[in-house]
Amino acid sequence: MTEYSIGLDLGGTNLRAAAIGRDGNLLHLVTGHTQYSEGRDAIMSDMVEAIDTVRTQQGHAGLAGIGVVVPGFISLEEGVIRNCNNIPSLENFPIREQLSHSLNAPVILENDANGAALGEQWIGAGRGVDDLVLLTLGTGIGGGIVCDGKIIRGFMGMAGELGHITVIPNGNPCGCGNRGCLEKHASATAISAMGKLMGYGDVTAKQVYERAVAGDERAVEIFACMGEALGIALATLVNAFNAPLYLLSGGVIGAWDFFAPAMLAEARRRSFSFRTTNTRVEKAKLGGEAGLYGAAYLPWAK
Amino acid sequence: MTEYSIGLDLGGTNLRAAAIGRDGNLLHLVTGHTQYSEGRDAIMSDMVEAIDTVRTQQGHAGLAGIGVVVPGFISLEEGVIRNCNNIPSLENFPIREQLSHSLNAPVILENDANGAALGEQWIGAGRGVDDLVLLTLGTGIGGGIVCDGKIIRGFMGMAGELGHITVIPNGNPCGCGNRGCLEKHASATAISAMGKLMGYGDVTAKQVYERAVAGDERAVEIFACMGEALGIALATLVNAFNAPLYLLSGGVIGAWDFFAPAMLAEARRRSFSFRTTNTRVEKAKLGGEAGLYGAAYLPWAK
Repeated sequence: MTEYSIGLDLGGTNLRAAAIGRDGNLLHLVTGHTQYSEGRDAIMSDMVEAIDTVRTQQGHAGLAGIGVVVPGFISLEEGVIRNCNNIPSLENFPIREQLSHSLNAPVILENDANGAALGEQWIGAGRGVDDLVLLTLGTGIGGGIVCDGKIIRGFMGMAGELGHITVIPNGNPCGCGNRGCLEKHASATAISAMGKLMGYGDVTAKQVYERAVAGDERAVEIFACMGEALGIALATLVNAFNAPLYLLSGGVIGAWDFFAPAMLAEARRRSFSFRTTNTRVEKAKLGGEAGLYGAAYLPWAK
Repeated sequence: MTEYSIGLDLGGTNLRAAAIGRDGNLLHLVTGHTQYSEGRDAIMSDMVEAIDTVRTQQGHAGLAGIGVVVPGFISLEEGVIRNCNNIPSLENFPIREQLSHSLNAPVILENDANGAALGEQWIGAGRGVDDLVLLTLGTGIGGGIVCDGKIIRGFMGMAGELGHITVIPNGNPCGCGNRGCLEKHASATAISAMGKLMGYGDVTAKQVYERAVAGDERAVEIFACMGEALGIALATLVNAFNAPLYLLSGGVIGAWDFFAPAMLAEARRRSFSFRTTNTRVEKAKLGGEAGLYGAAYLPWAK
């Protein structure tokens, strides 16, 4: 009998659950069908159903455990999402306990970016590396820190909130209460907002990218600006962790050629150890699958 | 026979070596007499002599090991100080290998702020806490991160350089090549420089403090300004590590009442997890002894 684990990723638009073997093979994948606007109860039963479907199909025997990754500030101690801009209906609700109760099995809860960092370290761009920092550049910016093969969780499970590092003290306001958070200057949302400031009207980050590809200087400047913000944060993370590997993931990395030069120049200027060591900054490999794989890896993680 | 360890702290003005028991008792203390301006050879033989004096007095039997903490960016892999503003003559010299050779014993090298964090965790303000971050506020600002009872060293041993976190992207220039490093806005040197900018002429941080105590509004503002810079860095460190305890040490903490309110207000505003968890920010307890104790603890550390 093959040992396997079930991972569930509560993503930005829908949820997915998968059975994944100890060697990283995807055995079975299920996609949820709930609109998050349908509210908490619908989301919760969708999660339970997805996991139960996978478990029934693979069999209870051989199941190493169940890992669930969710967005937002999570209190791991309590198993509760404290703050979640994308799915506010799940805030301050005992999600881990409820899932565990409905499934009659223990559930390991983790932040989605932490899960993605773990997934990349397991079978992605960080394979064989014990220490890495991942930044997920999407609507917001998430972070995951793996140190000595283990996720740094912090005493309440709220570590790795790297999207909320201050990069410009009086920069753009953030829902977290801060100003100048990295994610307000380097996420897809930030790129879109800079597009508006450049006179493009309502544009997506992808449309700004297409303008840059077409040679529009203003669009090129937007990515340089975003790359600088990222470089400030990167320098701070290099100075703090001196990890051998920093990974970037999320849709925005499609624009790598436009933002990476500014990002790397800024990091070089701002970090002595970045300049003087062979610190790698690379694209993550698992794309949108990293969180799902990381969730499944949770029962096996250190 | 009592098990003991020898620690040596190569401080800013002189060096000290001590034999310390497994329970943290100070058994024997030796102070070096070399002026650092006498150059590398003099410093090296002073270090060897101090350690050897302690070892001879305590006896080789029972010696658990020798730990040495030094300032600067250190490549632990190579046992070399890569960059050291205070003692440039020791840069890019195989200090660990030379000490080990002269003493005919293995030597564990560590950054002084990392050592101080370890010392505080062992028998200081962090006793019983597995995760803590220490900032040493002196001429410069050092950092030490203890996670799960272990120092975060990074792949080249250069982690924890928290004095070089960018707090103001276009702030004061720093010898590390960056602008707006924390230590250029919140160290004793920064306080003294702000005193100059406020029209005080050449003043020490202590003199600025005395003016604040006497009710001078400009001096009070200097500490508020310094506290804000510290708060920006603190928020970033809380968002990254979510440690239960952040410690401040160094002479500057004598001015706690003047800078702490601004520091804490800034951290509260800038960090969701600081606002919503019981994160402690406290004064370290071992003062200038932390590095020495941490050095001695190195042979016993995880």
